[in-house]
Amino acid sequence: MLEVGPRDGLQNEDRVLSPDDRIAFVTRCVDAGVRRVEAVSFVHPERVPQMAGAEEVMAGVPRREGVSYSGLVLNRRGLDRALEAGVDEINVAIPASDTFCVRNQGCTTSEMLDAWDGIAAAAADAGIPAGMTIATAFGCPFEGDTPPGRVADIARRAAASGAVEIALADTVGVGVPSEVRDLSRRVRDAAPGTPLRFHFHNTRNTGYANALTALDEGAATLDASTGGFGGCPFAPAATGNIATEDLLYALHRTGVETGIDLVGVSETGLWLAELLGRPASALLGRAGPF
Amino acid sequence: MLEVGPRDGLQNEDRVLSPDDRIAFVTRCVDAGVRRVEAVSFVHPERVPQMAGAEEVMAGVPRREGVSYSGLVLNRRGLDRALEAGVDEINVAIPASDTFCVRNQGCTTSEMLDAWDGIAAAAADAGIPAGMTIATAFGCPFEGDTPPGRVADIARRAAASGAVEIALADTVGVGVPSEVRDLSRRVRDAAPGTPLRFHFHNTRNTGYANALTALDEGAATLDASTGGFGGCPFAPAATGNIATEDLLYALHRTGVETGIDLVGVSETGLWLAELLGRPASALLGRAGPF
Repeated sequence: MLEVGPRDGLQNEDRVLSPDDRIAFVTRCVDAGVRRVEAVSFVHPERVPQMAGAEEVMAGVPRREGVSYSGLVLNRRGLDRALEAGVDEINVAIPASDTFCVRNQGCTTSEMLDAWDGIAAAAADAGIPAGMTIATAFGCPFEGDTPPGRVADIARRAAASGAVEIALADTVGVGVPSEVRDLSRRVRDAAPGTPLRFHFHNTRNTGYANALTALDEGAATLDASTGGFGGCPFAPAATGNIATEDLLYALHRTGVETGIDLVGVSETGLWLAELLGRPASALLGRAGPF
Repeated sequence: MLEVGPRDGLQNEDRVLSPDDRIAFVTRCVDAGVRRVEAVSFVHPERVPQMAGAEEVMAGVPRREGVSYSGLVLNRRGLDRALEAGVDEINVAIPASDTFCVRNQGCTTSEMLDAWDGIAAAAADAGIPAGMTIATAFGCPFEGDTPPGRVADIARRAAASGAVEIALADTVGVGVPSEVRDLSRRVRDAAPGTPLRFHFHNTRNTGYANALTALDEGAATLDASTGGFGGCPFAPAATGNIATEDLLYALHRTGVETGIDLVGVSETGLWLAELLGRPASALLGRAGPF
């Protein structure tokens, strides 16, 4: 499990949390047993004020044996900051949809892939593992369904340039399990041996079904966000990432051990709801565990 | 698909809808292409005021070729009312958990099974098909996990007395797909040839994954409630049934044709939210179709 709450969960919230609150959030996750956290994003603070002070956050998170902190990076400047700040791993997000890429990151998918090559090489030189997240891998609000072949091509390129991991992200929450199965197999064929991570949003209530299907298909890692926070700037009313606590409930009841304390995460979801001033979309905090 | 909104969706709401509003709700469902509706419950109006006036509702719903209306019945008195009111099919709910059965229906599971035998025989005499819903089939708030063998035993008895359908209901929303798979197979072995229906609540965000898994396992019918209304009196803050519009989104995108108009159902979910004075838990109305 990769906890993406401190990054994807917070980056679209109206309330901007201070670096101290974000350090407290990360600390709570790690205290509950989470071992991998996307803690920060090295984007321009004027573009995404919610992610400002990434260096401060990285300086304050608890450094514990077996805990790895990932930072989102979109260009070489971001990489330099990330290396300087001492992240344990780099995540580069590349939307498969050109239109989404241009609107979100100011360049085409192909230009992002060129940037990726440079970032991957520099990260390798620095001895820091870099993975790629293929965003809008299932669909895009502007271009509609994403052709699976396009995602497989990007995955092939990622693997060729040494990505330690490839993530398939349903950024706008449109996919269903049959697509997860299909895309998972295509990407495995295109990038054999590279571990797959999946990132689902529950925008249309398919996120948990997708996550469990991905696991069935051999996903190495699933992303989730405590409280289920995180949305999409292009769908303001939509719910966000699948919630860590609800995913853990399903995993534990399925017999998948995670070593993460469900109650601790669930309480953090409620704590976060208080800080952000809006209810969590996670249901476990409301229903209680069983 | 069995639309259970007019019954399970409304029976725990604070606002009691008039028979006219309930007729309007059922009419909207049928107009959108729904062909099977649990329209009413023949329980005592003082116990469940939300379901009062079942006869009025049945007298007002549109009678169209191919549309079947089901009524929930818990005893012989209810059956007589249902037959008089002209329902097309009977549904008898029997909790697998004794404690739940006593608290909810005032008698033990075994006493309900005896009542079922009489109801099934009388319905057969009247030429009206009767099916059984096994409630709390996955877990119970008082007794914990429901032993799958107990559910299989009840299913065996249902089939022996001529149930035209057996439904497995996760009344309090605790099950996960691996359990759906296991229980589905056990019940199919216990009642070979009897069509299976599944009834899921999304209390802990596992409902849609469960529904898609049940379909994969050969479920003949899935229950859903427009807007995702319907809760459990024993878990007041919890969300309700899986939402018809969100289930349809997943089914249609999976390639399963239903003949039901997704936009029509989604609009009815928003209409219902207005009437009930609280937001739908369905996400499609918020996110929009894709």
